[in-house]
Amino acid sequence: MTPFQAPLDDIFHSLRSLAGDLPGWDADLSEEIARHFASLAEGVLAPLNATGDQQGCRLENGRVRMPAGFSDAFARLGEDGWQGLTAPEAFGGQDMDHLTAAALSEIFSGANHALQMVTGLVPGTVSTLLAHGTTDQQARFIPRLVAGEWLSSMALTEAGAGSDLSQIRTRARPDGESWRIDGQKIFISGGDQDISRGILHLVLARTGKPEDGVKGLSLFLCPSEIDGIRNSVSVTRIEEKLGLHASPTCQMEFDGARAELIGVEGRGLAAMFTMMNHARLDVALQGVAHAARAHAIAAAYAADRQQGRMPDGSPAALSDHPDVQRMLAEQRTLARGARGMCHLALAQIERGDCPALVEFLTPLCKIHGSEAGIRSADLGIQILGGYGYLEEYGMSQVWRDARITAIYEGANGIHALTLATRGLRLDGGAAIPAFVDLVVRLAPDDAELAGRAQQWQATALEIAQAGDARARADQFAHDSATLLSRAVLLRLDA
Amino acid sequence: MTPFQAPLDDIFHSLRSLAGDLPGWDADLSEEIARHFASLAEGVLAPLNATGDQQGCRLENGRVRMPAGFSDAFARLGEDGWQGLTAPEAFGGQDMDHLTAAALSEIFSGANHALQMVTGLVPGTVSTLLAHGTTDQQARFIPRLVAGEWLSSMALTEAGAGSDLSQIRTRARPDGESWRIDGQKIFISGGDQDISRGILHLVLARTGKPEDGVKGLSLFLCPSEIDGIRNSVSVTRIEEKLGLHASPTCQMEFDGARAELIGVEGRGLAAMFTMMNHARLDVALQGVAHAARAHAIAAAYAADRQQGRMPDGSPAALSDHPDVQRMLAEQRTLARGARGMCHLALAQIERGDCPALVEFLTPLCKIHGSEAGIRSADLGIQILGGYGYLEEYGMSQVWRDARITAIYEGANGIHALTLATRGLRLDGGAAIPAFVDLVVRLAPDDAELAGRAQQWQATALEIAQAGDARARADQFAHDSATLLSRAVLLRLDA
Repeated sequence: MTPFQAPLDDIFHSLRSLAGDLPGWDADLSEEIARHFASLAEGVLAPLNATGDQQGCRLENGRVRMPAGFSDAFARLGEDGWQGLTAPEAFGGQDMDHLTAAALSEIFSGANHALQMVTGLVPGTVSTLLAHGTTDQQARFIPRLVAGEWLSSMALTEAGAGSDLSQIRTRARPDGESWRIDGQKIFISGGDQDISRGILHLVLARTGKPEDGVKGLSLFLCPSEIDGIRNSVSVTRIEEKLGLHASPTCQMEFDGARAELIGVEGRGLAAMFTMMNHARLDVALQGVAHAARAHAIAAAYAADRQQGRMPDGSPAALSDHPDVQRMLAEQRTLARGARGMCHLALAQIERGDCPALVEFLTPLCKIHGSEAGIRSADLGIQILGGYGYLEEYGMSQVWRDARITAIYEGANGIHALTLATRGLRLDGGAAIPAFVDLVVRLAPDDAELAGRAQQWQATALEIAQAGDARARADQFAHDSATLLSRAVLLRLDA
Repeated sequence: MTPFQAPLDDIFHSLRSLAGDLPGWDADLSEEIARHFASLAEGVLAPLNATGDQQGCRLENGRVRMPAGFSDAFARLGEDGWQGLTAPEAFGGQDMDHLTAAALSEIFSGANHALQMVTGLVPGTVSTLLAHGTTDQQARFIPRLVAGEWLSSMALTEAGAGSDLSQIRTRARPDGESWRIDGQKIFISGGDQDISRGILHLVLARTGKPEDGVKGLSLFLCPSEIDGIRNSVSVTRIEEKLGLHASPTCQMEFDGARAELIGVEGRGLAAMFTMMNHARLDVALQGVAHAARAHAIAAAYAADRQQGRMPDGSPAALSDHPDVQRMLAEQRTLARGARGMCHLALAQIERGDCPALVEFLTPLCKIHGSEAGIRSADLGIQILGGYGYLEEYGMSQVWRDARITAIYEGANGIHALTLATRGLRLDGGAAIPAFVDLVVRLAPDDAELAGRAQQWQATALEIAQAGDARARADQFAHDSATLLSRAVLLRLDA
C-alpha cells in the first residue's frame, strides 16, 4: 500500500491563494506547525489505519476495547500538545488560528479517520464550554481535555430521533444541585474507549414536555466518572458498520447518570449548534482528505502498473491510458476544489463580515467535500481495477470510511435544503450577492465564470422567492458547488 | 431487513414490452418458469445472502470451505434442474430460451450474487463446449454440469495479465494425448469450493511463444479430478475483498495439471469469448438486480420510517420528503432502464439480423447495468441514513457486492473503448443507423427523443471518422446509455 503522505504543498498553496489576505494569519508559521504535525500523522497515526480497520473495536464486559496501538498514538497526541492547539493559552492550549487547525484536521483525517472520530471532538467541546459554560465548568473541564487526559463525545441521536431532534426522549431531572439523566442514545462515536482516562459526554436531553419539541431540550455535561467513581453511563452495543471499524459507534444507556446543565435550560439546541457548526467543516475536510488520499494511492499505482500498449506498440503504464488519465484528473479536481471551498469558508468565518454567507457556505462545503471524497475513492477503486476491490490496497477502506461523511452531521439532503432555504433568506438574502461576489473575485477576468455567476444568481433569487426549495434543493446545491469549485480552481491555477 | 422478493412483474412487463414480438417466445410459459424459480430464490437462496457475507469463505488445508447452507442450496438447484435450464435436452437440459434465462439470472443475482458467482458459469461453459468441444468432450462434461454434479470456473487472469491477456505466461505442453499446464492464475471465482463433486476449469494457457501475444494462447479443459484422482490444481490463497465474501476469489497454482485442448490450438481467445460474451450480459443483469434490490429495501424503509413533519405539521414518513422521493425515483429509473436495455440486447441477439448492433449493445449494457446497480445501492445507503451505513440493514452489502460489476468481465473503461471503436466501425458502421432505429422505434411519436437520436448519430459518426475514441469513449458511452434508457422508459410507460 502507498504510504500516507500529508499533501502539505497542496494545502498551503490553497490556504495562501484563498485565505492568505486574512489579517494576522502567519502562513509560514502555520506551515511550520503543519509540517510537525504531518510528521506525527505519517509516522504514528497512518500506520494504524489499516490495522485498526482489520481489528475493529470490541465490547468486553460493558467496556469498549480499541485496536492495538491507538492508546499509544493518542498519548503522543496529548504529550505533544495537539489536543489543545486551538484552546486558549489560559487553559494550557496554544491559541492557534482556525486555518492551521483546518490544515491539521485534513491531515489527521487522511492519516486515520477513525482515530480522528474518537479524539476530534475536543476543539468543538472546548468552544462549547467557552461559549456556554460557567467559569467553574471551563476551569474543571477544559484543562484535562487540552492535556489529552480526557476526550469528549456528542450524544444527540436516538432511535426515533435522527435528523429530527424534536423527538428526543432522553430525560433530565433536577437532583439537588445537579441533574440525573435517563435514556438511550444511539450512533455515539467514541461513547466509550480505553485510550483516555475519562470522557466528557455532551448530552442533549429533555427537561420540558415532549410536546415542547426542540424547545424542551437542554444540553448537559455528563462525565464518565466523577471523583474517581464511574457514572451510570454504559455502552450496550457497538454497531457493525461499512467502515470506520476503529471508531466505536455506541448505543448508550444513561441510567440516572449524574450531569450538570451547560447554558440555559431549554436552549440546548443552540448550545449544541456551537459544537455542530464546528463539526460540519471538519466533515467537509474529511471528504477532502479522502479525495486527496484516494488520488495519491491511485496515481502511484497507475504510474507503476504496466498494462497494455501505447498506440505505437510500446509498453504502457496504466497512467498512459486516456481513460485512466481522465479519472485521475477528476480525482485531483475534486480534492483541490473541495479543499479550496473549505478554506474560503473558514476565511469568511474569520472575517465575520457576512454571517449569511457563512450559513450558505458551511452546508455547501459539507455536501461538496463529502461527495468529493466518496467519488474520488470510487474512481480510485475503478483505476485499480480488481486490486481496488481487494482490501489489501487500502482503496476500499478509503471508500468505506468516506461513505459516512455524506450522512453524519446532518445528511446531505438536509444540508441542501438548509442552504436553499435559510441560506438564501437570512439577512434579507445577503448570501446571494455575497456568493456572486466571492465567485467573481476569484477569477475577475474570466467572462464565462461571470456569466455563470449571473445565471446562478437568477436561479437563487427564483428559489428564494418561489419557495419551491424542497424540490430543487439538491440540484441547486450541486450547481452552486460546481460554480464555486470552478472559480476556486481558476484561482489555484492562476 | 426487507426480505428479498423477486421483481417478477417488472421483469415480465419489460420482457413483454421490449422483446414480446420475438418469434417463438412464449411469455406465459416463461413467466410460469420464472415464478417457480423465484420461489426457490426467495425461500432458499436469499436467506443465505447475509449469512454468507458475514461468514465468508475459508481456506483450510488447501481446500475452500463455503459458508453454511451453500452446499444444500446448490443441491436444490441441481435436483430441480435449474443448472441445465438452457442446455440441450440431449444432455439432460431443458433447452429453454435466453429471455427466460435472463429473467432467472437477474432473480438469482438479486437473491444471492455470491452463490451465483460460484454456480453461474455453467451455461457459458456448456455453450463453449457446444461451440468448440468435440462430441466426446461434450458427452463427458455437459451431462455432469447439467445435473448439478460439477461446476465450472474460468481461469484467465494472471498477476501481470489483467485487462491485457497478451501477457499470459501460464504454459501448456503436450503430454501424449493430453496436455500439462504449469502456471499461476489469480482472481478465479469459485476456483475451489466444497459444494460440487468436481470443477471443470477452463484455462487460457500459452502453447506458442511469449512474443506471439494472444495468438499463442489456447483454451484447455482442466478437471479438478480425473477418474477419481485429484488433478495437480491447488488454491494457494483466497482474497479479502470489499464484497462477495461468500464467493471465493482464488489464487491458483497449476503444477503439471492434466488438461485437454478445446477448440483449435492458438485460437484460445476466440473460444474464451464464447464464454465471456455470455458473461457480459449476466454482469449487466447483476447490476439490474442490485439496482432493483436496493430500491426495494429503500422504498420499504422510507415508507415505514417516521421522520420530521409535513409542511402542515403532521408527522411525515421518510418517503414524504421530496429529496427522498427524488432518490427513490432515480433508483427505480435506473433499474427499469438498465433492465430494459438488457432485454433489448437479448432480443437483438436472438433475432441475429445485425451483429454490429449486438457488439455495440453488449458493452453498453455491461456499463450501464453495472453502474445502475452501484448508483442505486449508493442512493439506498443515503436514503437509509445512519442505518444505511450499518451492515444490519443489508444495503451496505448490496453496494459492496455490486461494486465489482464495473470492474470484472472487462473494466467499464475498456468496454466504453470497445463500444466507441469496434462497436461503431464493425460492418461498415452498421450499428449507428441500427441504434438510431432501435431508439426511435421505442417511442415513435416522441419528437424530442427523435431529435436526441439524430444528435447522437452525428456524434457517433464524428467519433467513428475522427478516430479520437480513446479520449471520448467514456462520455459517449454514458450519452448512449442515457438515450437508450430514456427510450426504454418511454416504451415501458406507454
